[in-house]
Amino acid sequence: MRLSSVYYADVHAALRQALDEEGLDGFLATAPSDVAYLAGFYYAVTERPVYLWFPREGRPLCLVPQLDDEYARLQRIEADIATYAEFPGVVPAERVLAREVASRGRPPARIGVSGGLTLAAHAALTSALSGAELVTSGVVARLRLTKHPEELAWHRQAAGICDEMLAAGRSLIEDALRSGGPLPSEGDLARHVIGYGTDAMYQRYDHVIYTTKLAGALVYAGPNSAHPHGLPSRRRLRDGDTVILSLGAAVGSRFVESERTFVIGEPSAGQRRYFAAAAEAQEVGTAGLRAGRTCAEVNRECLDVIRGHGLGEYIRHRQGHGIGVQNHEPPWVEDGDATVLRAGMVLSSEPGVYVPGHGGYRVSDTVLVTESGQERLTGYPRGLEENVIAP
Amino acid sequence: MRLSSVYYADVHAALRQALDEEGLDGFLATAPSDVAYLAGFYYAVTERPVYLWFPREGRPLCLVPQLDDEYARLQRIEADIATYAEFPGVVPAERVLAREVASRGRPPARIGVSGGLTLAAHAALTSALSGAELVTSGVVARLRLTKHPEELAWHRQAAGICDEMLAAGRSLIEDALRSGGPLPSEGDLARHVIGYGTDAMYQRYDHVIYTTKLAGALVYAGPNSAHPHGLPSRRRLRDGDTVILSLGAAVGSRFVESERTFVIGEPSAGQRRYFAAAAEAQEVGTAGLRAGRTCAEVNRECLDVIRGHGLGEYIRHRQGHGIGVQNHEPPWVEDGDATVLRAGMVLSSEPGVYVPGHGGYRVSDTVLVTESGQERLTGYPRGLEENVIAP
Repeated sequence: MRLSSVYYADVHAALRQALDEEGLDGFLATAPSDVAYLAGFYYAVTERPVYLWFPREGRPLCLVPQLDDEYARLQRIEADIATYAEFPGVVPAERVLAREVASRGRPPARIGVSGGLTLAAHAALTSALSGAELVTSGVVARLRLTKHPEELAWHRQAAGICDEMLAAGRSLIEDALRSGGPLPSEGDLARHVIGYGTDAMYQRYDHVIYTTKLAGALVYAGPNSAHPHGLPSRRRLRDGDTVILSLGAAVGSRFVESERTFVIGEPSAGQRRYFAAAAEAQEVGTAGLRAGRTCAEVNRECLDVIRGHGLGEYIRHRQGHGIGVQNHEPPWVEDGDATVLRAGMVLSSEPGVYVPGHGGYRVSDTVLVTESGQERLTGYPRGLEENVIAP
Repeated sequence: MRLSSVYYADVHAALRQALDEEGLDGFLATAPSDVAYLAGFYYAVTERPVYLWFPREGRPLCLVPQLDDEYARLQRIEADIATYAEFPGVVPAERVLAREVASRGRPPARIGVSGGLTLAAHAALTSALSGAELVTSGVVARLRLTKHPEELAWHRQAAGICDEMLAAGRSLIEDALRSGGPLPSEGDLARHVIGYGTDAMYQRYDHVIYTTKLAGALVYAGPNSAHPHGLPSRRRLRDGDTVILSLGAAVGSRFVESERTFVIGEPSAGQRRYFAAAAEAQEVGTAGLRAGRTCAEVNRECLDVIRGHGLGEYIRHRQGHGIGVQNHEPPWVEDGDATVLRAGMVLSSEPGVYVPGHGGYRVSDTVLVTESGQERLTGYPRGLEENVIAP
């Protein structure tokens, strides 16, 4: 499971050009997602820092803790590898980094870093790289906004796994109904679909790589589903419940999410009304994801549908967010984000309606912006009739 | 699953005193683990910031994204709750926070923050809280070094689950050997023990709360086990393998880890030698975890055992690390950490021997430093003879 050298050559060339344009001598990647994106190193994230030094000229250098040295080599990452002993270290990682950078030619004067760098790391780096100025820069974040064709291939595979996970979750409920046994709990469902997704990953791919999560699930039913980010509980599903399966998967650390709302048994008038508003908002919002439009515009139109249904008080969040090496990343499909959409962006489209004490309604697809419109990567049926689970 | 008001009163009193001593008007917690520790709010961590303002006087205030409002109330967190609309937001979270802080009395002049604050958040906060100075401070990190009796009760319960997870993993291998079927893969084992631990959590506790992981597992066998932080692969176990089950669990977000090394079939001379060195180092290192000693001293004595066996080249990491609301947190049982151990600290003790191309050997316990010595919270058998899995 490794992107080709074509991918890395393309990304590196684009980053070099961006560095030139910003007058930076290099970029020091410190976020695990940036390190994965630029060098293909996937690792267990701990307090031990990993630094990827990407100079404007010459080969990138990845500084890893000694314990990851052989593991990084095994992954044939797209960078030279240097190591430091341990964290916090007698000689801190930042001093080892400074030495390595100095040994590789003219000392950099202006180094780009992401806004996600911590104050502690910033202080250690500033002290170690004396003479260099650390400049907060969005060069890598901007590159990551649009996806490379090789990344899209992985997003598509992850979308397929997500669709299958939804089907597996639904089957678990249906099987229980059919057998007359107790319905699964939210926790049971979460474990079942995560197991399905993880198994699929191991069966289909030779070298499964680290991500924050291979497959994930938020499952909530009845009143719990009114909390958009609640944790699955041990509450068992019951007849009449609204159920949200909010599932995600990552192939090669390229994320997808897919969420569907189900109703167990004949939907009530209220369930029909809330579902219809959320589904219509998702249709409108998804169709709005077109090149040339801004995130803020699309979000407003999308959420206006819910307001138009007289349900504005039940809005709890924006329409969606970018997805890539992370399951949430810019741009944000939100009032506050003026980013102009472009072909190659991958976004979630997931407006929701949350009625306290009753339940939540959310349909989410992972959507690719294309030259001529958009394509939903996730394809599991969305409609209420298709997602009524009859006893 | 909620700590009592006694716990919070104790922690808050201690923090107020520390603020006084440092001349701080309050602490602004931004790390999810600090928010959990101080206010008992557990949530899905995304790009949406959560800020806990802990003033030197008066009740703490937790600013959460609108989507977590009801979820935070449901958790009866130990703070007032205010909300902001969304991220990035038309009105950013930091401006809402500044308004809330201003409405609660005399404006703070010196605010403590942790070194984990990002540059982006620091810039937004500095601009919004104009007039206040943000000071990097270890006040909360220092409090967290020793555990409250109520926290220890949860650590003990997590240790019990970890021990059971080890037994469940071993059984999966033994059952396969007994039935003559194919041995499980590393991925199978990981999924099995994580499922066991997660199930146990849901069966035993009413309100399972968010943590970075309820139950986790790194499983690696044969040559893969030589990578201390490798990811489980689909490689099936085989006769002669060295197998590391590196397991963790969190009850009420209080973590424990437990790791054992197994050998399938009759151990070779090499396996005996490496195992003996790692096990002896763990005995010596664990016995060294006593009040009054420094982390650096204990680590050196521990790793010296491995060097004394002539295996120094196979050391890849320090003896261990603190465990609490996070599975890795200070202090670091490492050369570079001069922290003096005190009763109430909880630490991992996990020296390892990693032989490239052959395998890895690590035994880890979660250890409580007591007034008179130390206590291992995890109790699964450690010896080689007990951990030979015979076909």
